[in-house]
Amino acid sequence: MKQKLNLVGQRRVVIDRVEPSLDGGAFPIKRVVGESVQVEADILADGHDLLRASLLVRPKKARSWREIPLKPAGNDLWRGCFTVDSLGYWEYTLRAWVDHSQTWREGLRKKHDAAVADNTDLEIGAALVRAAAKRARGKDVERLENLARTLAEQGQSLDRRVAAALDKAAEELVDRYPDLSHKTDLKEPLRVWVDRERAGFSAWYELFPRSAGVAAGSGGRAGSDQVFSHGTFQDVIALLPEIARMGFDILYLPPVHPIGQEKRKGRNNTTQAAPGDPGSPWAIGSAEGGHTALHLRLGSKEDFLALVEAAKTYQMEIALDIAFQCSPDHPWVKEHPQWFVHRPDGSIQYAENPPKKYEDIYPLDFETDDWEALWNELLQVFLYWIDCGVRVFRVDNPHTKSFPFWEWLIERVHENCPEVIFLAEAFTRPKRMYRLAKGGFTQSYTYFTWRNSPEELRQYLTELTREKPREFFRPNFWPNTPDILHEDLQSGKPAAFIARLVLAATLSSNYGIYGPAYELLEHKPVRPGSEEYLNSEKYEIRAWNRQDPRSIAPLIARVNEVRRKNPALQSNRNLRFHAVTNPHLLCYSKTDDDGDNIILVCVNMDYSRIQSGKVEFSLPAVGPHPHQPFVVRDLLSGHSWTWHDYWNYLELDPDLSPVHLFVIDR
Amino acid sequence: MKQKLNLVGQRRVVIDRVEPSLDGGAFPIKRVVGESVQVEADILADGHDLLRASLLVRPKKARSWREIPLKPAGNDLWRGCFTVDSLGYWEYTLRAWVDHSQTWREGLRKKHDAAVADNTDLEIGAALVRAAAKRARGKDVERLENLARTLAEQGQSLDRRVAAALDKAAEELVDRYPDLSHKTDLKEPLRVWVDRERAGFSAWYELFPRSAGVAAGSGGRAGSDQVFSHGTFQDVIALLPEIARMGFDILYLPPVHPIGQEKRKGRNNTTQAAPGDPGSPWAIGSAEGGHTALHLRLGSKEDFLALVEAAKTYQMEIALDIAFQCSPDHPWVKEHPQWFVHRPDGSIQYAENPPKKYEDIYPLDFETDDWEALWNELLQVFLYWIDCGVRVFRVDNPHTKSFPFWEWLIERVHENCPEVIFLAEAFTRPKRMYRLAKGGFTQSYTYFTWRNSPEELRQYLTELTREKPREFFRPNFWPNTPDILHEDLQSGKPAAFIARLVLAATLSSNYGIYGPAYELLEHKPVRPGSEEYLNSEKYEIRAWNRQDPRSIAPLIARVNEVRRKNPALQSNRNLRFHAVTNPHLLCYSKTDDDGDNIILVCVNMDYSRIQSGKVEFSLPAVGPHPHQPFVVRDLLSGHSWTWHDYWNYLELDPDLSPVHLFVIDR
Repeated sequence: MKQKLNLVGQRRVVIDRVEPSLDGGAFPIKRVVGESVQVEADILADGHDLLRASLLVRPKKARSWREIPLKPAGNDLWRGCFTVDSLGYWEYTLRAWVDHSQTWREGLRKKHDAAVADNTDLEIGAALVRAAAKRARGKDVERLENLARTLAEQGQSLDRRVAAALDKAAEELVDRYPDLSHKTDLKEPLRVWVDRERAGFSAWYELFPRSAGVAAGSGGRAGSDQVFSHGTFQDVIALLPEIARMGFDILYLPPVHPIGQEKRKGRNNTTQAAPGDPGSPWAIGSAEGGHTALHLRLGSKEDFLALVEAAKTYQMEIALDIAFQCSPDHPWVKEHPQWFVHRPDGSIQYAENPPKKYEDIYPLDFETDDWEALWNELLQVFLYWIDCGVRVFRVDNPHTKSFPFWEWLIERVHENCPEVIFLAEAFTRPKRMYRLAKGGFTQSYTYFTWRNSPEELRQYLTELTREKPREFFRPNFWPNTPDILHEDLQSGKPAAFIARLVLAATLSSNYGIYGPAYELLEHKPVRPGSEEYLNSEKYEIRAWNRQDPRSIAPLIARVNEVRRKNPALQSNRNLRFHAVTNPHLLCYSKTDDDGDNIILVCVNMDYSRIQSGKVEFSLPAVGPHPHQPFVVRDLLSGHSWTWHDYWNYLELDPDLSPVHLFVIDR
Repeated sequence: MKQKLNLVGQRRVVIDRVEPSLDGGAFPIKRVVGESVQVEADILADGHDLLRASLLVRPKKARSWREIPLKPAGNDLWRGCFTVDSLGYWEYTLRAWVDHSQTWREGLRKKHDAAVADNTDLEIGAALVRAAAKRARGKDVERLENLARTLAEQGQSLDRRVAAALDKAAEELVDRYPDLSHKTDLKEPLRVWVDRERAGFSAWYELFPRSAGVAAGSGGRAGSDQVFSHGTFQDVIALLPEIARMGFDILYLPPVHPIGQEKRKGRNNTTQAAPGDPGSPWAIGSAEGGHTALHLRLGSKEDFLALVEAAKTYQMEIALDIAFQCSPDHPWVKEHPQWFVHRPDGSIQYAENPPKKYEDIYPLDFETDDWEALWNELLQVFLYWIDCGVRVFRVDNPHTKSFPFWEWLIERVHENCPEVIFLAEAFTRPKRMYRLAKGGFTQSYTYFTWRNSPEELRQYLTELTREKPREFFRPNFWPNTPDILHEDLQSGKPAAFIARLVLAATLSSNYGIYGPAYELLEHKPVRPGSEEYLNSEKYEIRAWNRQDPRSIAPLIARVNEVRRKNPALQSNRNLRFHAVTNPHLLCYSKTDDDGDNIILVCVNMDYSRIQSGKVEFSLPAVGPHPHQPFVVRDLLSGHSWTWHDYWNYLELDPDLSPVHLFVIDR
């Protein structure tokens, strides 16, 4: 029973449980440029020989690997770290081998200490060093040959020869040329997808451009029959300075395409539109065009390009909303009827969630036999807007389009344009949200809006920042959206708006608001128990008084400024919750990678009453200076306190400010 | 940028996070015949369509798969279960698809309830049923065609047609022929390795056959210069009835090969053997032969075969010890010098752990260029003994031989002989032990011996039975071995011996003792602080008085009988720890899969003092009858108590019995 074996049996090292890795490498982990990846793995071999191991890293397109030594961390765990400094795919893999030189040196050291080392031990070493000389380059060849001669030189005293063997410089010289003939490599490299910095740190502002044309104080009463003039891209350009002053860097526009006439929805989502009702921007497509056309009233392509350019001058960029669904008069319905499900009577199947019908919307059929043409056309939509200079997309309801489609599409877009950011607007079950993120979406909407107690937020953020999702799911926290006016905001209390804004902006490095509804404290629901806005901008043009003195725009501007100036708030990797004696208070800190910048946030989540308590916060938990007083300075109020103890008293009056946004001064 | 796509884009379902699986399928999970595998996975698709999923199972050699429906368990998790009923590899995989028929039916039901169902809805259904008819076989074709006609029959009332659609039998009929054209399968099936039952439930007894020949009461004084007659396989045969009475089913013999003469160790591990010293059985090989030879004094091959046969008549089997190392006079040293490391002076490198030298042992070099021949020869050793009828091997120090070698060897042996059991004697770091088990070892020695407090055992057993290792690591608990006389036993207190025996035998379905040292309470260490036995049988022949009245053999016999009669103790899958008010007490229960057989064990781990406390044990935790009194009957003492409450008082006097081994009577 002789067997011819198709492997290298001399490979004694095995590499196990490499982290981070997603589903055994099926999906890449994510980072932004400048971030690091801490890699660890179990590395084992038989017997007592010493091992060495390396982390090999490269941008996927590079020819050669950079080699970083791994360090043993005890219990057969090894660790190493690398930083990614360019966009696109990176690869990392591990290599490990038995190090006979090191093993021999360790043995020699012990034997010499026990005075049992002998000539043979040194000759064994000389042979190892001679072998290293054969692998060496340049002057090291001669150095190693000399060392081998010294070790083997029987005329010399044993002590001197042992000293030569254990000399630090000699060790380094030998270790430079390891014997890799029986090395073990991972079967396949693992991957990191590297995004640009804004993928990890961004502040979004959502605005309906069609409401941008109503002059402040024009006296328009929401919900009245008054028809406001339709805003344009030029009007949005005029608003850019104000939005930039608030400190946002992504201006996100709901769909800018022609809106269907057929079955158009009226104000407050009535099924019959009145003459002049503008319809919902998400009912995409009319005789004027579909997903690559612009709504005629918003302006021309030149106007749009001007807006994209103008935003850049304010260090902002435009995000478009991609909603792959069609109004009945979308051109695709006639041109590609096979992309839709047909009913037995020949009509096209509208969207439904039985018994509810949405007759103004035709979903695309991802089971169509013509799926290749459909996928390609949808890809063309993205490529068209990328060609117009757009690099950020908010994708509407991605979980109602097939998962494999998105994985394919994002991969295709990123091949030529790795800087594109995709935000997944999937308010669905957790595993579907995670899968979309694993499949390529850069950022994701979350359940933040519905996490309304300190305990809920602690649990949710622990899942997002400490467990597996931290490697692939980048949360983007929104206190409101045109679809979601949470009950907590319906009181209209400024404390609720301020607290939710600060929570979103400091718990998550990516966040956004739908304005000006947010800063103007818009809070009336369409009916009790609903999360829909009354007189929602989704169905009508609204007049907003941006100069309203109650606006919290100045506070928002300050919070965004604090985010920009404090690196601790630009990532979620070092979020830490702190114990507090009052369950209405939530306290957490963020620290930058150097540990220099520490932000401590304390929020009273009871927006009606003063709440007080003690919070555990000690510098030893985050920095190197135990038992030393330090100053906490509130970046919103400007007040400072000196703290001496681990536990410190706080009191937060929602009528004054529901939050402390402390920086630690040392 | 048209793309030709190399995939089926219509596959909308994705399957994620399949459990159980080891390293993405790189290693099989393990079961024994008759055990079940509970499979679960996240199964997701876009949109709101209903999904269906199946578990497909087969013995690897079978042609066809058995299909078992998966059930949704909420939050996109699906579950299914199968039982393995034959030895060897089994495969399991998952399949999932969008079920348009079920989706349509659910929609119809809701619409009908809301009185908005119409003719078109029924025609959609008729088309789906007609498509099912095309996939159907036998009489179902006509049944489905009839159903389709009924649904489409406009003459009939809508109510009757809806009733026909939602009829239970009609549903089942349609569901029998799902549309799998866009189904998603796992990329690769996952594997289960199925062992015979004894792999999961066994009681081992280790015995030095060379001591088997000393008659009871022969008056031999251990450590004296008296030379006892060398035991033989025939002597072991004579002991079989006694060992069988104790209830063991595997009789494990240390190596039975010729023992090296060169550098032979003397009594108590002295470096100089006296004339007549028998040497260590682990110093394998002499001029008389190596790993496939028998020690001349033990008997002939016929004697050995007779022992193997005789054991069977007592429902026992013989386990051999495979120790891949050589004494300097092992035949391989001359025949295959290339399998050993050579020193510069031409001598062969002995084992060492600097500064210690073990000159009586030559390790094999797993980095030899001649590794294929070496691997094949080592395989031949196993095949030789398998040919002699041996099916159980205890492998000595497998962690000092290469991991890839063991994976290869076990796979080769199992190809033709799947009933072979390999016990890994690797007392090493945890990850190395786990890797050997993942790589194929059937059972494994553990840290049990050094887990000496209730809390330590709770933690260790939780890791073994609740975490990942439960799928591949089968613990075998040994209270002692010839190498390990734990401090807890060195007092010689019967309570310690009884408690450790019961712990091993009930915490782990596989356990063993080294006898007769154990039942005779042998407890003197070679020196204080050492775990080595004084006058260790490893280096000398010992006389044991098996008739000693202090022997705990009767108790061991009773414990083994309890194990055989109570299926709860034959697996570790349903081990549960119970809260107890005294930290010296450890309480746990085991339940069989049906929940009928419940064993509750309470152990006082303070072997010097009476300890008492209350233990939480309620039938609701394990069975279906809350708040009902039940009887706990101690299977060792025969005493019974009726318990009414969740918390019950216990008192354990180590001088009477340190344990309660309760069965629950209902």
